[in-house]
Amino acid sequence: MAVAYAVGVGPGDPELVTRKAERILRAADLIVAPVSRAGEPSVALETVRSFLDDRRQQILQLPFPMTPDRDQLVDAWRTAAGVIADNVASGRDVAFITIGDPLFYSTFIYLLGILRSEWPGVPVEIVPGITSFCASAAAGSVPLVEADECFAVIPATAGIERIIEALSRFDTVVLLKVRPLFGDILEMLRQTGRTGTTLFAERVGSERQLILTDFEQIAAHTPDYLSLMVVRRSPAPGASFHS
Amino acid sequence: MAVAYAVGVGPGDPELVTRKAERILRAADLIVAPVSRAGEPSVALETVRSFLDDRRQQILQLPFPMTPDRDQLVDAWRTAAGVIADNVASGRDVAFITIGDPLFYSTFIYLLGILRSEWPGVPVEIVPGITSFCASAAAGSVPLVEADECFAVIPATAGIERIIEALSRFDTVVLLKVRPLFGDILEMLRQTGRTGTTLFAERVGSERQLILTDFEQIAAHTPDYLSLMVVRRSPAPGASFHS
Repeated sequence: MAVAYAVGVGPGDPELVTRKAERILRAADLIVAPVSRAGEPSVALETVRSFLDDRRQQILQLPFPMTPDRDQLVDAWRTAAGVIADNVASGRDVAFITIGDPLFYSTFIYLLGILRSEWPGVPVEIVPGITSFCASAAAGSVPLVEADECFAVIPATAGIERIIEALSRFDTVVLLKVRPLFGDILEMLRQTGRTGTTLFAERVGSERQLILTDFEQIAAHTPDYLSLMVVRRSPAPGASFHS
Repeated sequence: MAVAYAVGVGPGDPELVTRKAERILRAADLIVAPVSRAGEPSVALETVRSFLDDRRQQILQLPFPMTPDRDQLVDAWRTAAGVIADNVASGRDVAFITIGDPLFYSTFIYLLGILRSEWPGVPVEIVPGITSFCASAAAGSVPLVEADECFAVIPATAGIERIIEALSRFDTVVLLKVRPLFGDILEMLRQTGRTGTTLFAERVGSERQLILTDFEQIAAHTPDYLSLMVVRRSPAPGASFHS
């Protein structure tokens, strides 16, 4: 029977794709890639483009608008889930690709919910991917956590209070999507003495990757939408920070 | 110039190794694998064994004892760092392999500290790996976090108070190394109403992988050393829990 695969392709570097993801993508009949708007490039698709063969495989880019309008979002998810289910029902293996990991802050989670409730007969297999925080830590040589240390991930959209609380109680905190609160976050990192233990990363794994560990350089930068920060309580022995 | 690579090989499934890790491992002159005791099998080495060629590559298993004796641990780390640095200085590319990701609860963090302080001239490149929690969530089809949700990872060795606090404040909490506190954790999951939203995983990616989402089955199981749990505040639309 055909399968709906959700394939995490990692942060955007074709080499940080797993062997399993590559195998499934080379064999799939249909590859579905989310784009924020029709005509926009899909980072996930660019990451795996070299594995695909247009003559043999169908590649479908579906718009997943970045909008707070819940109805519009649900429409997009339902459309995508329907395309996936219909194709699997016709005997075609479908691979829905996502940047990072399909179950860690990914749109695929909504599709999974719709598939499970409305097409419970469609077999779904999920292929994990390298998360952006692991790729960023590796690119910057900054240890995340060791031994008994505790680790938190907070999307900046959860609010500055959640960030302050997490920093006070966790050894290492990853802040995602920092752009909207960037000024507040910088101020709070100064107040809590984290200027020497913060890594900033954006577009990690791509040709335009930027990794900063010097706080003044971080503060002078204008982050893009998918930027993240790794904030440690203390400098790690192996980390190369400049404050 | 030769390079010291730290290569995350993921949870233990050869297919969940990245293309980059495979390329580096096939080309390295020396592969260093940690084992808990001389003669014990190395899970990391078994994971990548099929990429290696004994005739062309040297494979060295170094003991990293599981002991609370800090002096003994530091000795093991210093020995490994010395072997890596000496080989790189002789022009050999060295790959130190770790299960999961090299900077996320990995012994490599200690080696990195020693290499940076004592052999600062040795180039180190870190290859991220699939974390056990991403692989476990994928194997169990359980979403981790979405949108503004907050995520925490707590090693059970941090203590039950830290676990209780994290569960009260985070949408999803991953508990690592649950064996020593397993009874206490089960009791606390019952008290906080998480019996319908907990996934248990061990040896994920291996042939002996066990994934449980039925709480009574979880409670009846005797976990092994590297078991983990994913505890959600609420059932996800796409998750298949049985309580």
